[in-house]
Amino acid sequence: MTNDDTDKRAGKGANALWGGRFAGGADDVMRAINASIDVDRRLADHDIDASLAHAQMLAACGVISSEDAKAIAKGLEDIRAEIAAGAFPFSAALEDIHMNIEARLTEKIGEAGARLHTARSRNDQVATDFRLWTRTALDRLGLQIEALQRALITQAEAHADTVMPGFTHLQTAQPVTFGHHCMAYVEMLSRDAGRLSDARARLNESPLGAAALAGAPYPINRDMTAETLGFAAPMANSLDAVSARDFVMEALAGLTICAVHLSRLAEEIVLWTSPRFGFARLSDRFSTGSSIMPQKRNPDAAELIRAKVGGMAGAFQSMVLMMKALPLAYAKDMQEDKAPLFRAVDDFELCLAAMTGMIGDLDVRPEAMAAAAGEGYSTATDLADWLVRELGLPFREAHHVTGRLVAEAERRDIALHELPVEAMKAVEPRIDERALGVLSPADSVASRTSYGGAAPVRVREQIARWKEKLG
Amino acid sequence: MTNDDTDKRAGKGANALWGGRFAGGADDVMRAINASIDVDRRLADHDIDASLAHAQMLAACGVISSEDAKAIAKGLEDIRAEIAAGAFPFSAALEDIHMNIEARLTEKIGEAGARLHTARSRNDQVATDFRLWTRTALDRLGLQIEALQRALITQAEAHADTVMPGFTHLQTAQPVTFGHHCMAYVEMLSRDAGRLSDARARLNESPLGAAALAGAPYPINRDMTAETLGFAAPMANSLDAVSARDFVMEALAGLTICAVHLSRLAEEIVLWTSPRFGFARLSDRFSTGSSIMPQKRNPDAAELIRAKVGGMAGAFQSMVLMMKALPLAYAKDMQEDKAPLFRAVDDFELCLAAMTGMIGDLDVRPEAMAAAAGEGYSTATDLADWLVRELGLPFREAHHVTGRLVAEAERRDIALHELPVEAMKAVEPRIDERALGVLSPADSVASRTSYGGAAPVRVREQIARWKEKLG
Amino acid sequence: MTNDDTDKRAGKGANALWGGRFAGGADDVMRAINASIDVDRRLADHDIDASLAHAQMLAACGVISSEDAKAIAKGLEDIRAEIAAGAFPFSAALEDIHMNIEARLTEKIGEAGARLHTARSRNDQVATDFRLWTRTALDRLGLQIEALQRALITQAEAHADTVMPGFTHLQTAQPVTFGHHCMAYVEMLSRDAGRLSDARARLNESPLGAAALAGAPYPINRDMTAETLGFAAPMANSLDAVSARDFVMEALAGLTICAVHLSRLAEEIVLWTSPRFGFARLSDRFSTGSSIMPQKRNPDAAELIRAKVGGMAGAFQSMVLMMKALPLAYAKDMQEDKAPLFRAVDDFELCLAAMTGMIGDLDVRPEAMAAAAGEGYSTATDLADWLVRELGLPFREAHHVTGRLVAEAERRDIALHELPVEAMKAVEPRIDERALGVLSPADSVASRTSYGGAAPVRVREQIARWKEKLG
Amino acid sequence: MTNDDTDKRAGKGANALWGGRFAGGADDVMRAINASIDVDRRLADHDIDASLAHAQMLAACGVISSEDAKAIAKGLEDIRAEIAAGAFPFSAALEDIHMNIEARLTEKIGEAGARLHTARSRNDQVATDFRLWTRTALDRLGLQIEALQRALITQAEAHADTVMPGFTHLQTAQPVTFGHHCMAYVEMLSRDAGRLSDARARLNESPLGAAALAGAPYPINRDMTAETLGFAAPMANSLDAVSARDFVMEALAGLTICAVHLSRLAEEIVLWTSPRFGFARLSDRFSTGSSIMPQKRNPDAAELIRAKVGGMAGAFQSMVLMMKALPLAYAKDMQEDKAPLFRAVDDFELCLAAMTGMIGDLDVRPEAMAAAAGEGYSTATDLADWLVRELGLPFREAHHVTGRLVAEAERRDIALHELPVEAMKAVEPRIDERALGVLSPADSVASRTSYGGAAPVRVREQIARWKEKLG
Repeated sequence: MTNDDTDKRAGKGANALWGGRFAGGADDVMRAINASIDVDRRLADHDIDASLAHAQMLAACGVISSEDAKAIAKGLEDIRAEIAAGAFPFSAALEDIHMNIEARLTEKIGEAGARLHTARSRNDQVATDFRLWTRTALDRLGLQIEALQRALITQAEAHADTVMPGFTHLQTAQPVTFGHHCMAYVEMLSRDAGRLSDARARLNESPLGAAALAGAPYPINRDMTAETLGFAAPMANSLDAVSARDFVMEALAGLTICAVHLSRLAEEIVLWTSPRFGFARLSDRFSTGSSIMPQKRNPDAAELIRAKVGGMAGAFQSMVLMMKALPLAYAKDMQEDKAPLFRAVDDFELCLAAMTGMIGDLDVRPEAMAAAAGEGYSTATDLADWLVRELGLPFREAHHVTGRLVAEAERRDIALHELPVEAMKAVEPRIDERALGVLSPADSVASRTSYGGAAPVRVREQIARWKEKLG
Repeated sequence: MTNDDTDKRAGKGANALWGGRFAGGADDVMRAINASIDVDRRLADHDIDASLAHAQMLAACGVISSEDAKAIAKGLEDIRAEIAAGAFPFSAALEDIHMNIEARLTEKIGEAGARLHTARSRNDQVATDFRLWTRTALDRLGLQIEALQRALITQAEAHADTVMPGFTHLQTAQPVTFGHHCMAYVEMLSRDAGRLSDARARLNESPLGAAALAGAPYPINRDMTAETLGFAAPMANSLDAVSARDFVMEALAGLTICAVHLSRLAEEIVLWTSPRFGFARLSDRFSTGSSIMPQKRNPDAAELIRAKVGGMAGAFQSMVLMMKALPLAYAKDMQEDKAPLFRAVDDFELCLAAMTGMIGDLDVRPEAMAAAAGEGYSTATDLADWLVRELGLPFREAHHVTGRLVAEAERRDIALHELPVEAMKAVEPRIDERALGVLSPADSVASRTSYGGAAPVRVREQIARWKEKLG
Repeated sequence: MTNDDTDKRAGKGANALWGGRFAGGADDVMRAINASIDVDRRLADHDIDASLAHAQMLAACGVISSEDAKAIAKGLEDIRAEIAAGAFPFSAALEDIHMNIEARLTEKIGEAGARLHTARSRNDQVATDFRLWTRTALDRLGLQIEALQRALITQAEAHADTVMPGFTHLQTAQPVTFGHHCMAYVEMLSRDAGRLSDARARLNESPLGAAALAGAPYPINRDMTAETLGFAAPMANSLDAVSARDFVMEALAGLTICAVHLSRLAEEIVLWTSPRFGFARLSDRFSTGSSIMPQKRNPDAAELIRAKVGGMAGAFQSMVLMMKALPLAYAKDMQEDKAPLFRAVDDFELCLAAMTGMIGDLDVRPEAMAAAAGEGYSTATDLADWLVRELGLPFREAHHVTGRLVAEAERRDIALHELPVEAMKAVEPRIDERALGVLSPADSVASRTSYGGAAPVRVREQIARWKEKLG
Repeated sequence: MTNDDTDKRAGKGANALWGGRFAGGADDVMRAINASIDVDRRLADHDIDASLAHAQMLAACGVISSEDAKAIAKGLEDIRAEIAAGAFPFSAALEDIHMNIEARLTEKIGEAGARLHTARSRNDQVATDFRLWTRTALDRLGLQIEALQRALITQAEAHADTVMPGFTHLQTAQPVTFGHHCMAYVEMLSRDAGRLSDARARLNESPLGAAALAGAPYPINRDMTAETLGFAAPMANSLDAVSARDFVMEALAGLTICAVHLSRLAEEIVLWTSPRFGFARLSDRFSTGSSIMPQKRNPDAAELIRAKVGGMAGAFQSMVLMMKALPLAYAKDMQEDKAPLFRAVDDFELCLAAMTGMIGDLDVRPEAMAAAAGEGYSTATDLADWLVRELGLPFREAHHVTGRLVAEAERRDIALHELPVEAMKAVEPRIDERALGVLSPADSVASRTSYGGAAPVRVREQIARWKEKLG
């Protein structure tokens, strides 16, 4: 898309369209910076859909004849087929996908083709196409997020009881289960999907009929084209319709935030599969190896997912910079809106697919997780909570007592549950054998029964809820 | 907020709490990088609200006595009053607002204070407080956006017929009205408000009771605290509850996108009030002057609004960088989450207020706008559309004919409507006097009657719709 | 580039290289996310150069035979010719350009090819290639910046006396000349070129021989390969050599800052060529038009340049995000480093070329500039300075007096120099006719003779200095 | 700093300065968005220095009397003392530090004070002050980077032989030493310091005397003030002098890149001190603990350093957004330039100090590192290199053979050096006992003697070079 005028062409050979006014023609530099066809050809299908809806409406409103509308429809479907077959003669001199298709249409059907652009402009046309493309992309991404959620839920179900360390500061803090951990990501992804879905709803209004910027002086029916194209309504202000790109920024922000979540999971996969953790093993399908160290499995896909958040956040920043301080209505700056979103969506789909595959294949090592979960006096808080619950100690005092018990165990270089009850009583006389019952990681996890807690019973409830929700 | 442990203190003098384990104490650098009280004291009110809800619930569930709950409630309200009065003894050694308040509470009410932290942790506590703060901020910003919309609508109503040039590429394109232009921003702001409102709905779940990360081993009722605090529900996964910061990113993305819209309007105000445009004049209240050039009115506020989008987009990028690749659950990195949002919200409120004031006071110069709207053959497309509508020319041919007419007018250095009909007929014989009826900017605007178009009748419809909507 | 292992291949058909260890093979998703050949094939020439230098050095050090080195050299030059001719069989299964070339070499020359990778790894190889590519790009960009400086100097020379308004806040402030304005950009670009040149110097050290990360257990001579490839020295730490990507960030920061300068000039071109300013006219070659409004010249190239700063700043942000918190040494994340720089450099070259063309062709309208320069009491400060210089008034008092004179002129709706001397004397009795001599824009400009000032004599000095400097 | 006019004041009570022109006064919103004194008061010392230099020069050039210059100098030093003593009456109504100081000066010394602002403007004044502030900051940061380098060198010297695993993809790759690892950061920091030093050199030109934008109509000597203030030269174009802010972007880019390096080291500290690695232990001074898990040491400072790269990169993006597309010369947008740099520098100093402290105190655990270095057949490449060196196998074949040997060892679940020579001979008959001599991590490291390699002898050379360099 190039600018607000509906019928011009760049390039030395395109003087016919510019009416002979630009004697010099645009030179190579200008053509190179100006043409967008290499990028916007991805809009082709949506451009054809929008033109079909537009022509049908023009005929219904009596602006063009129904014969012309039929010829246009036939011609556009032929072009769609040509493009699908790789037989369409794309021309950089025609700058963008809109002019390429329209010029080809007129080539094919003559004068009727020259009537298609009545009551519209490239400004509303590109806005319509791009909203349709984005809507389709968001729908597809929503399904992919669901697929990743399902993969996580499957792992969660298999590992609802698999004890692993819960970390804070990458230090062992309290035991949780791998299933619980997976379900945390199911929650995050659910909000991510919600953001994309909200963005989808907000962008789903039709710019078509806003024309160059002021609306059209024809008795057109914008509701009709909106409905045909699946939009909830026509946009209510023609200037806004052609100059708004907040939907691109919102989509990119949504992708970026989800990509941050994926980067967190990717980082954990890198950690878990490192020999220093040994919590999990990647499948052959989702790791790369070495001919010389055949046991080695590099988490390349996880690392690439982790890296690609950069591209998405960068794309958001690009859009913000591009739109900052642009006066209404259309400015050529806005031609730079598509490449960042196209790239971000492509990358994002790849990330979701790779993550879904990795999680699906992930070979979890419960023993290694369990061993790590028991280190570092990870159940100290359970002991403190026991002191509160059973002996009625105030929380802060219970913590103080527990700290002294841990210190004693550390001095003896033993685990907390190995500390003789007598040694415990020396610190707090009311402690008895029952306290030992909260000191294993499995007992600790089982006790976390508050809503949303790590207890397997709670995790299974969440799994059931999600399975029903996702159908 | 510092980390996942619920009961520790930094600083050389705080060894009592660390149990004498850190012989060296934290030195000045550590204290400086670690303390957050200068930032997070803004959470004080929400921290107290959350503690009140928590204590009330603990008592209702039998975890603490109702006497203790009452003492806690009394103590917390006293502390709230102290803070409001500026009499609260903030201590950097106590690191954050949570420890400051809890330590003060215990100072005031003794052992009951030491029971407050039962079944919670600073991890769920800070998440709860910060969500409450953000929710409140988003609500306030929503109202401010509405105020700006009202100011724009008032101007739109006064100028529904005030013709001005619609620009593309900052070149005159087609006439619109100033009212139509204002309403474009009302639409943008409406989507902006929708984004903040969606963000608000999505963050409005309660982390409280997730404790450090695994949930609590007490029979607590998370629904009850959620309801008390106005949350829609408790968060369903304890790990997610303490480690999620997507709500901060989403809020910042929403602010940034709205700030981009404000920057576009700010840019236009700078342009309109420049002597080269002369479309409008800022009031004394929203411009600064010069003792030496007393007629000069600098649009400082508009420029500052335009600049401040940088701070907001920067804050979003800061949060993305901070959260990228952080393993679950809590990491100290997350302490850096509040300052960017606090600053962005403060700046954003200022921008909205200043923009509302500027728009409210803006002194529009209809004559200058009208003169500019008539320049540059801005109604050429109207003539082309007339040729299509009245003579049935195909759109592309109509444009070609019009181009030749404009060229003829340009050659004669006259306006299009000054071109003799004979000269028009020389180009296209079927043209007659009626064509002149579409060539004034006012006629052009009046003809743009498609839904959402620039025609005053359409603009007034939108004004009416919005006045009803905003109540 | 994929990872640290020097000899593996992905893809179902590549089990031979993975030694049959990965029974499943990498599936399509993995291949899609993993392969980089579509991006890194641009490194081909540099990869061949580095391999030539490496083989020559290995032979000189006795690690391989000189026959093998000769065979390798011959094979590599054949491959270079194949690539240049478009005849090279690129394979995605071989993942990256390094493996593509090496596999092809062995295909061509047999065992000698299998000796090339001795004492190196893909880790140091890709770092070397990418530094060479970046160095070449920075050199090229430096020349392009110079070309733009020359175009600006040419305009400055032609317009050293062309008075135009100097703006602050887009309000008329003080007269300057168009030549002076152009020279401001020459200065900015000079610092931009300095940044790229500093970046070039800093990156110009050779990673080759760092091998996977620890250096090589062969008697190699890293100084020799460094010298052959034009590096100032070998990098002094093998871990740093393979894991450093600060050179990419620095190059992108340098591009971004220069792009900000270009965006400022682009914005000014959009303003100057707007009908509301009318200060300049773009050539046919660097504007686009409309068949219907043939007089219209849209500054598309300027707008695209203004927009493209977004892509560059976004690329910088992407790199920062990608590198943030990556442990040493190589991580697959770093494969994402090339696409952002490649794109940014491509765009930047286009921007520089288009800006150079636009400036070279720019048709300046001195009368419009002069008229605008005289508006708005733009010489009020000159009068104040006269009061200081000639009457000895303190600066602040002189400003106060001038403010009253301007107010009087504004009341009478006349220019400052039209104010009768008597009216001036009424405000400050010591004013006489000489004061009128400073009130024209041309006089004002001529008086700004401090070093670097707007006076034509000063501007010509700077032009002369720059012409000598650029040769 | 507010705008280009040198002598105005905002605020309802400041009508005297605005000459009664702004009847309405600026309301609270305007004052809030407009005032910068809370931020720019940090420029006070530099503002005084610049005024001293300016007054001295004015007297030397005969523009003011030497009595006035003396009175000004005396008054300014009094003000400096007042500020240092906390006794200066800062006024928000006077907007910025420049007006605060000048107004106070006139209060103190009368008419001479009103002469100080001759031949300058707030535009060149703020640019001068801000460059001086930035220069000072960069010098200070350079020293802090050196301090961190020294701390790393000290650790490197102590651990030049301490074998640790070199990672790629966080998988064990090849053994290195902790000393070698530390020296990698010394190299990175050296380039970081170089960037700051280049930025310092580039910004070190004096804007003073550029006045509002056009230079001054007085016989001033800009070389003299430049020299007094330690600038290398006066800036050569007055428009550029007041509108350039690339120095802020360059400084922020430099900080950001160094912060990325710090984030990598911070990430490694988090990993090394995690119980899953156990490679190192933080001192009491640079970790925080828990009353309940007293053995726990949270790497809070490392995490905060890791997070703070976000603030710096965000500040860079803020500046890019702020400056994008700003027409020359001064725009109020530029008032937003100081807060991001001030905050980034403050944070950066804290990060450098905390990192220096952490590294200095770091308690390395050589046994844990050594154990990890031997895992995962980390010396497989050493065996392959032996096959190349001693048996003359082509590199790719040697890797293939080694892969089979590793597979055999893995099948037997033993280390490579535990594989009987007979088993080795079964794969490659020419292998003999000498091969075992390269299979220990220590032998592997010792063999990496190429320049910059991990061999202790090489590492010690680098340590010696750096100790001499840093003096």
